[in-house]
Formats: sequence, structure tokens, C-alpha cells
Amino acid sequence: MAHLRIALAQLNVIVGDIKGNGEKILDWTRRAAAKEAQLVLFPETALTGYPVEDLALRQSFIEESRQSVSRLASRLADEGLGELVVVVGYLDRTDEPEHPKKGHPQNVAAVLHRGEVVARYAKHHLPNYGVFDEFRYFKPGNELTVLTIGGVDVAVAICEDLWQDGGPVAATAEAGAGLLAVINASPYERDKDDTRGELVSRRAREAGCALAYVNLIGGQDELVFDGDSMISDADGTLIVRGPQFVEDLVLADLELPDSQAVNGPTVSRAEKLIISRHHVTDAYPAPSTPIEAPRYPRLSADEEVYSALVLGLRDYCGKNGIERVYLGLSGGIDSTLVATIASDAIGAANVYGISNPSAYSSEHSKTDAADLAQRLGLNFSTVPIAPAVDAFHSLIDIDGVAAENLQARIRAVIWMAESNQHNPSIVLACGNKSELAVGYSTIYGDAVGGFAPIKDVPKTWVWRLATWRNDHAVARGEQPPIPENSITKEPSAELRPGQKDTDSLPPYEVLDKIIAEYVEGDQGRAEIIAAGYDVDLVDRVMRMVDRAEYKRRQYPPGTKISFKAFGRDRRLPITNGWREEHPALEAIP
Amino acid sequence: MAHLRIALAQLNVIVGDIKGNGEKILDWTRRAAAKEAQLVLFPETALTGYPVEDLALRQSFIEESRQSVSRLASRLADEGLGELVVVVGYLDRTDEPEHPKKGHPQNVAAVLHRGEVVARYAKHHLPNYGVFDEFRYFKPGNELTVLTIGGVDVAVAICEDLWQDGGPVAATAEAGAGLLAVINASPYERDKDDTRGELVSRRAREAGCALAYVNLIGGQDELVFDGDSMISDADGTLIVRGPQFVEDLVLADLELPDSQAVNGPTVSRAEKLIISRHHVTDAYPAPSTPIEAPRYPRLSADEEVYSALVLGLRDYCGKNGIERVYLGLSGGIDSTLVATIASDAIGAANVYGISNPSAYSSEHSKTDAADLAQRLGLNFSTVPIAPAVDAFHSLIDIDGVAAENLQARIRAVIWMAESNQHNPSIVLACGNKSELAVGYSTIYGDAVGGFAPIKDVPKTWVWRLATWRNDHAVARGEQPPIPENSITKEPSAELRPGQKDTDSLPPYEVLDKIIAEYVEGDQGRAEIIAAGYDVDLVDRVMRMVDRAEYKRRQYPPGTKISFKAFGRDRRLPITNGWREEHPALEAIP
Repeated sequence: MAHLRIALAQLNVIVGDIKGNGEKILDWTRRAAAKEAQLVLFPETALTGYPVEDLALRQSFIEESRQSVSRLASRLADEGLGELVVVVGYLDRTDEPEHPKKGHPQNVAAVLHRGEVVARYAKHHLPNYGVFDEFRYFKPGNELTVLTIGGVDVAVAICEDLWQDGGPVAATAEAGAGLLAVINASPYERDKDDTRGELVSRRAREAGCALAYVNLIGGQDELVFDGDSMISDADGTLIVRGPQFVEDLVLADLELPDSQAVNGPTVSRAEKLIISRHHVTDAYPAPSTPIEAPRYPRLSADEEVYSALVLGLRDYCGKNGIERVYLGLSGGIDSTLVATIASDAIGAANVYGISNPSAYSSEHSKTDAADLAQRLGLNFSTVPIAPAVDAFHSLIDIDGVAAENLQARIRAVIWMAESNQHNPSIVLACGNKSELAVGYSTIYGDAVGGFAPIKDVPKTWVWRLATWRNDHAVARGEQPPIPENSITKEPSAELRPGQKDTDSLPPYEVLDKIIAEYVEGDQGRAEIIAAGYDVDLVDRVMRMVDRAEYKRRQYPPGTKISFKAFGRDRRLPITNGWREEHPALEAIP
Repeated sequence: MAHLRIALAQLNVIVGDIKGNGEKILDWTRRAAAKEAQLVLFPETALTGYPVEDLALRQSFIEESRQSVSRLASRLADEGLGELVVVVGYLDRTDEPEHPKKGHPQNVAAVLHRGEVVARYAKHHLPNYGVFDEFRYFKPGNELTVLTIGGVDVAVAICEDLWQDGGPVAATAEAGAGLLAVINASPYERDKDDTRGELVSRRAREAGCALAYVNLIGGQDELVFDGDSMISDADGTLIVRGPQFVEDLVLADLELPDSQAVNGPTVSRAEKLIISRHHVTDAYPAPSTPIEAPRYPRLSADEEVYSALVLGLRDYCGKNGIERVYLGLSGGIDSTLVATIASDAIGAANVYGISNPSAYSSEHSKTDAADLAQRLGLNFSTVPIAPAVDAFHSLIDIDGVAAENLQARIRAVIWMAESNQHNPSIVLACGNKSELAVGYSTIYGDAVGGFAPIKDVPKTWVWRLATWRNDHAVARGEQPPIPENSITKEPSAELRPGQKDTDSLPPYEVLDKIIAEYVEGDQGRAEIIAAGYDVDLVDRVMRMVDRAEYKRRQYPPGTKISFKAFGRDRRLPITNGWREEHPALEAIP
């Protein structure tokens, strides 16, 4: 057996910031060297960030990525870190420039050693579903790269290579590798339980060797990466686990089988991949002091989601140079939860809550908002909207829903004006997923904002997270931030006297379940009705969901936490004549 | 030689409306039968519309499409139209249900005859670039279908099969077919000259046989299809050409080589496609009266674009049940052109122009708007914004850009209130592509609307189209609709005294060229500078374009007319640290 000290660098990068990300990779390599690591793995496309979307079509971008990875190798050597073997993800291209995948971009892992890129591995399985569009941009690789490092045969793979059967994992088993190093950019998703941990265990058994998995952390527009880097032994036991949602250098000492010392490339029998082999370093002496590898427990379901929302907002602000956020505080649970997340994300001193009472606002809407502001310590002001409401009514003749929407839009004008006046700042939209699904919002009113932190959180989960956040505070001996009345009172938009959400919508407990079937599950009418819901209710909800597509298109981005979030990964036509309740093209009687 | 009367049905369908589209296909088949056609081709996915996006992931939708195509065959037979051979595009699936391409949807052409679906062809080449995401949804077919119809061997292909080298076209040549029937859903694009006509000619020569090409027309969200159906003979001469942007049944009598009467499937040597053969009908007698096939000339570049914009807006309204449109009329060229397009699209009686003068509005902004309204005959009202401006300034303390934006947002609140009051209606956003590119607009102000007709029209083209529309009127002996002063005056947002667009932006002649390089061409900084532009100007424009991504995400949909429109086919991160002016990861000196 050979000894290898491995470091999994789960870091937070910025898409497109090749310079900044490169400096960060350098810095973390220094830290890994200081801990006597011999092999350090950085995540998939750590140099460019993930996903780069159409930046992959710019030759100048790909060129900079290619050159930077070579410069990174030189700089490591210049700093005396050349002996450390570094695996890092970046974008490269094949050599034939060709439309439409110009110059055929590839998603590549580079292996750096002694000032050179000594080997490359191009991702074989390209995901093209959900939030992924890799087949749109990249050309798949057809070669498995096996490196001999410290006397161990190390195969390299990238993210989706692990999720699909066959391909690099099967070829790793054929190659008889001692370690499979997998670099990832795998976004967080709620309700996956421990799918990823189980996958890593299973693939380690299939590959017949230990498996090291490193993942990004951080928010990138609508995605949030959770880290959760880990190592499984060849039996599928998870022996190392990193933290979630924070940067960390996860270190472990591994005892691995000696290299089989095969020379030259072979071809995988089953997978038709070429197995190329590169000798990088000989066996290492054991490090001076042993390392205790971490085994972080996974967060609870509630804490996981809350952490994802906090990090998603923090990074959207931080990475875009936004210093302050403004939001309307109605005393309702949605804006209350958003204000709490914002205070946890960027500090209450940078959060500006505005109460905009109207003639229809209840007394508790004002007192609950003020109570919240005081508990969190955020900036709070009150701007009543009556003078503006009156001014518009003197100009135009409207009533009913148009007059209700007017109030919501006047509030939005005030928030936007304050935000524009105090740049760099954004308004936070406080809509939740249930509202977005059925279009229960005023476009250019409460739907206004630069970011929508709870856009992918169903209303029933809004209450659940608020309760968790209060309990979490109590457990830490702190004051619960959220006024109990905001959690328990009945939801209302307060745009007309006595209005309640249930005037327009079914109870959220029912609505959220139907939305889950229709939106997350892509179930049809017959299946949803068969699951036990009222026919008219199902038809009504389905129609509301379809009709609200035009509103959702203009909704601000927000952190995705579910399998199917409105936004990047759900693509439906606005102009959509699909109505399941009418049988199509009926037979002539 | 055998005789075949062919009908190309270039129709306008609605995505998802399987019932309505099916009835339309029936109706057009009746018309083709009345003209003694023997073979009628309907466009790609004519039964479901194109593109269906995530509807392809719903089993209930695919199931309805499959069943409807069978019912369509039965109904044709029931009506005595069973002898006519109908080729129609729809969605089907393979039989293995499997995630993530659930049940493997396929983009299929069905051949209907005597009440049955007698053959199917699944699209082989799946486009996955630009506006296309077919690889995301569909599984490619691997079989070329050759039908013997009226004693002629007819191969069937679908759209992208024609655009990519090899595959079905090459296999058609090997199969020795007498006609290649290609059904298409090919969106309109400006500046393509006659790429499609040249492609059809070239592929006919490659296939060694005549080629019939039928395309959809109509608007679907951001896409607009232009028809332009055509037939090439085996030498590559275009002998038939349908009109652009209107529904039409294009009929032609063709003399084609007799069937080779090959039995059973063969395998294409070069393309590894299975060539399957189906005898459908024997040779037909010659029709009673010959048909003069049409040869429509192509529209001029200006008329083409203008027609695309009119049809895009008409169908967005018509297919979504929108009866009226509201828009702000500033007297500037953008809102003037949009009002003209809207009047041409849905009738001036359904267009409501609102003038919202402020303290900074020029006299001509009011008189030009009123002049336009009178020329077009649209509904016109004036709502000065001063009372609302004063009300907000009494509530909040803002100045500078925040106060400028306030005016734009107050106008938007008025338009939206009028629209909400008079449903079903939408507001039209009047922003052009140049403004969108650099973010020269007020989010939730002038960017408000349900549709943005000139979203993909650069400012220099806005003037060009306005001039064309006036010339076109004069040529038809009508009054030019657009006041000359709106075309000639200097652009201004009129949000502060003496403001001009050139205070913030380079001249549009220069700006549009840089945008074309950067946005349409995905060119990098070095290439754009090398093309002769000032370094600082290029850096400034590139930065403005990158920074405006968050605004564009919330912009209403609008008809795409270019290679790269902001919206569906251009996907860039909002959080984007890519700065070409800084060399990445500099070498240590």
C-alpha cells in the first residue's frame, strides 16, 4: 500500500473571474502545501466558475482560460509548490474551430506538476437536463486519464461522469486504479436526502477503489452549490465528509493500492474509452504528523434549505457589488422571512425595511413590521402611500383589481426610488413559490426586485423555515427574530377591506401539494386527480399555473432549492394552448 | 416518369393546442383534396406547435399528441379523404420510459393513408444551439423512411436533417428516391439573404432528386416563422415558391422518376441509417386540369423585417386572447414605430396611446404624439404626471437618476392601470435592441409591458423601418403614418432639462456596430478593437452590455429577428466577473 495525503478544496468562485479565481486557487494550494498535502483537488471549472453559459461561445474567454491554467502551473512552480500535484477544472477547446460549438469548447480537468500541465481529462458524460445545458456547449471527451501519483494509480472524472452508468467509472474499474478523483460543480437541491453520498459509495464499489469527491460552494445567480465534499473507501464506506455551504480545505491521509505500473494507453473493452496513463510522481514518504480527517454530519432538512437561501443571497450581493438591500415590510410572513434571511446574509445594518401602510392596512401589519425590525436591528422607516394613491386616482379612472394593483405598484416605486438613491443596492422581492406558481402577485408591484430570496420556497415551507429560524435562535440562547404573530396570522395582501389569500386561492396545504405534482412532477391532470384532489380544483390550479407564465418570465432571479424551480430550468411557452380538460380532436360521433 | 400533385400547407398553429391545430390540419386537407392534391405536407410538429419546450416532458401531452395523430387519420378516412397521403409533424415517444428524457420524446413525421398511420419518421439531426434545445428533449431517429406514393419513391426528413451534412440527405441519394419531402419549423432571421433557398437547391442536388420544403408561419412568443415554402427540382432550380408570413396552400404538379420498387429495408452504407420502405399508393392518373405553381418573389429586407414584427405582435395578442394594447406615446421614434406596428397588427381601433407630459417634456413631444395618433386613427389620451411626481417627492427624498427613474415609473403605473382596467389587454414596451444592450432604460419604467415589439431591432433599424413604412404608404397612395419630425429629431429620454441620448451613449451608428460585433458575433475585445473602434469606447460598451444583463432578464418578450436576440437564445450569467481588459492571473515579474 502507498500513502497519499489528499486535500479537497471546496471553494467559492465567481463565474467569469478567471483572474480572481486563479489567485484563489493559488492561495488554497499554498494552504494545502502548508498541510503537507501531496495531491489537491479543485472543483469542476473552478478557474472559470460554473455555469459559464454563453461565455463558452467566446473564443477570447476560452483562450484566457487555457492560458491561465498554464500560467497557474508556472506560478505554482515559481513559488516552490511545483511538487504538489494539483487537479483543477477549467475550460479548454479542441483544435478544430467549427460552428455552432465554436472551436468545440470542452469541460476539462488539468493536472499540474512541476510548472507544467502534465495531463488533461475532458468530461465524457455531458448533462443536458434541468439546470444543465452542457451538450449545447461542450464536446464530450473519449479518454480516461489515469495518473500515477505517489505510487498510486489515480483516475480522473468530472461530475456527470459519476451520475451516468458506464463510461469513466466502468473504465476506472477496468484500469485497476487505486483512486478515482472526481471534481464537481453539483448544485444543491432540497429533498434529495443523501443521494449524492449514496452515489459516491455505489460508484466507489463499482470502480473497485476509493473515490474522492470535491464540490464547489457558493451562489451563482439562481444556483447555489453546497460543497459536501467526501471520500469513500473501496467498500463504499464514507470515511471523510466536509462541511456544507462553507469554504473548507478537507484533508485526509489515505492508504491506497500500489500502482500497477502499466505503460502506454489501452482501450476500455466495454466503454470504448481510451485509457491514457501518465506517471507523475513516485511514492511519497509518510507525512511528519498524521491528520484527523473530518466527518461533518449533514445539516437537518430545514437548516440545509435556510443555509442555501442565506448563501444564495449573500453571494448574489457580494459577487455583484451590492452593499444594501431594500424591501417592503408588511408584517406578513413572506417579507418577514426575507428580512431575516437578508440580515443573516449581509448583516442587519445593510437591510432597509420600509412599511407602506394604506387605508386597508391592519394595525398588526404596522406593529408586526416594527417589532421585526427592532428584533433584527435593521433600518426601518414608514412611508404611507395615501398621497400617491390619491394623486393617481385624480389622474385616471380605475377601480377593482386595477386599483388594488395600483397600491402594490406605488409601494414598488417607493422601494425602487430609495434603492436607486442609495446605490449600490437592490430591492428584494418577497414572493414565494406558491404565489409565483399561480400568479398571485402584482407584476411591477410586489414582484419588483433585483433578487427574490424565497422565489423557490413554497408557502408551507415559508412558515416551516420561520419556525425553524426562531427555534434555532432559542437553541443558541438568542431572542427569536420573527414575531410569533407573523407566523400565526392568516395571510392577506391587504389591498381591499377584509381581503384574505383564501378568497382567491385554496388553502396553501392543498395548493402546495398540487403544485408539487404539476410543476415538480410534470404530472398530468388525470394523475393529479387520481392522487385524490378535487377535479375542479385541479383544473383551476393548472389553469392558473399555465396563465402565470408571462408573469414569472419577468420575475427577478432567486435561489433554486428544488428539483424544478421557476426560472432557469423550467421552460414553458407563454403562448400555450394546451388544455388537458378538453379531449383533442374528438372522433365524429 | 410519374405524376404527383403536391400541396405544401404552410399554416399557423398554436403551441399546445392539439385540438385546434388538428382541426386546422383537417380543414386544410379538405382544401388540398378539393384541388385534387395527391400528397399534402404539413410542417414539423404542426399538430403540437413549435417549440413545445417542457411540454415535451409531460407524458399526458405526448400521449395526447400520439392519439390525436391516429384520430386524425381516422377522421380523414371518415370524411372520404383517406386516399390522400398526408405527412404531418407531431410528437411521439419511444417505448422505454426513462429519466431525464421521460419516455424519450421524439420529433416525428407521420404518414397518414386510408385511416391509418402507415409510416413514421423520427428526426435524425437534433439542433441544440441558438433558439433550439432539441437534444435536451428528443431522442434522435436512426431510420430513413421511403414511401412509394403515386409510383414515386418519396423520402421524408425534418428541418435540421437538411442543415447538417450527411444523414438523411445522403441516405436519400443512396436510396435513389424521386422526391425528398422535408417538413420544417424554421424561424425567421434577418440578414440571412437567401440561405434557405440556396440550402434547398444544394441538398436537392446532393440527394439527386426534387426537394419539397414546407414551413410554418406565425408568431410563437419570441419566435416568428415566415413560411417561404418551396420546391427545387433535382438540378437545384427553385421551381415553386410560396409567400412569406401568410398562410397558404402551395400547389404544384411534379413529374418525378418512377419508383425503383425495392422491397424491404436496407442499410445506408455511409450513414448507418436503416432505409425502411413502405408502399402507400400506386401511380395516379393525371389531374383533370393542370395547376400553375406559384413563384412569389422574396420581400425586400425592410419589408421582411417589418412583416415579421407585425405578425409576431398580432399572434402574441391573438393567440393569448389579448384584444387591446396600451402604450406611452412620447413623440419619439421608438414609441411611434411601435404604435404603427401595433396598428398594422391588430387595428388602430384597438391601440391606446397615452401621452404623459412632465415638466421636462418638449412641446414637440406632445404635438408629434398627437399628430401620429391622428394619422393612424388610434385612441389617444393625455395624462400629465406632475401630480403624481409631486406626491412621491412629498413622501421620499430623492434626486438625480432616482428622480429621473421616478418619472418613467409613474408613467408605467398609469399604462398598467389603464391596461388592467380594460382587460384583456397588455402594455407594449417600446425599447429597442440598442437600449436593451446597454441598459439605457428604466426597469419597471419604460421597460414595462406584456410584449416588446422592437426588442430585437437596433436603433438604426428603427429609423430605417419608420422610413420604409412611410415610403410604403406613399407607394400605395396613402398618407405616411409617421410624422417626419419623429424620424429626424434627436433622441432624448426627456427626464431632465436638455437631456440627449448622446449624453450617455455614443452615436447610435457606432454603438450598433459595436453591439453587432459583441452580441451577435461573440467577438472579444481584441477583435473589436482591431476592427477599428476606440479602445475606451469598446471597453465602455462591453461593460455596459455585461452590466445590463439583470435588466434584460426582466424585459418583456419580443419578436426575435436577428441571429442573437436578447431573450431566449442568448444566455449569459448576471453574476459575471469576466473582464477582458484585465489580463488574468498575471505572471510574477
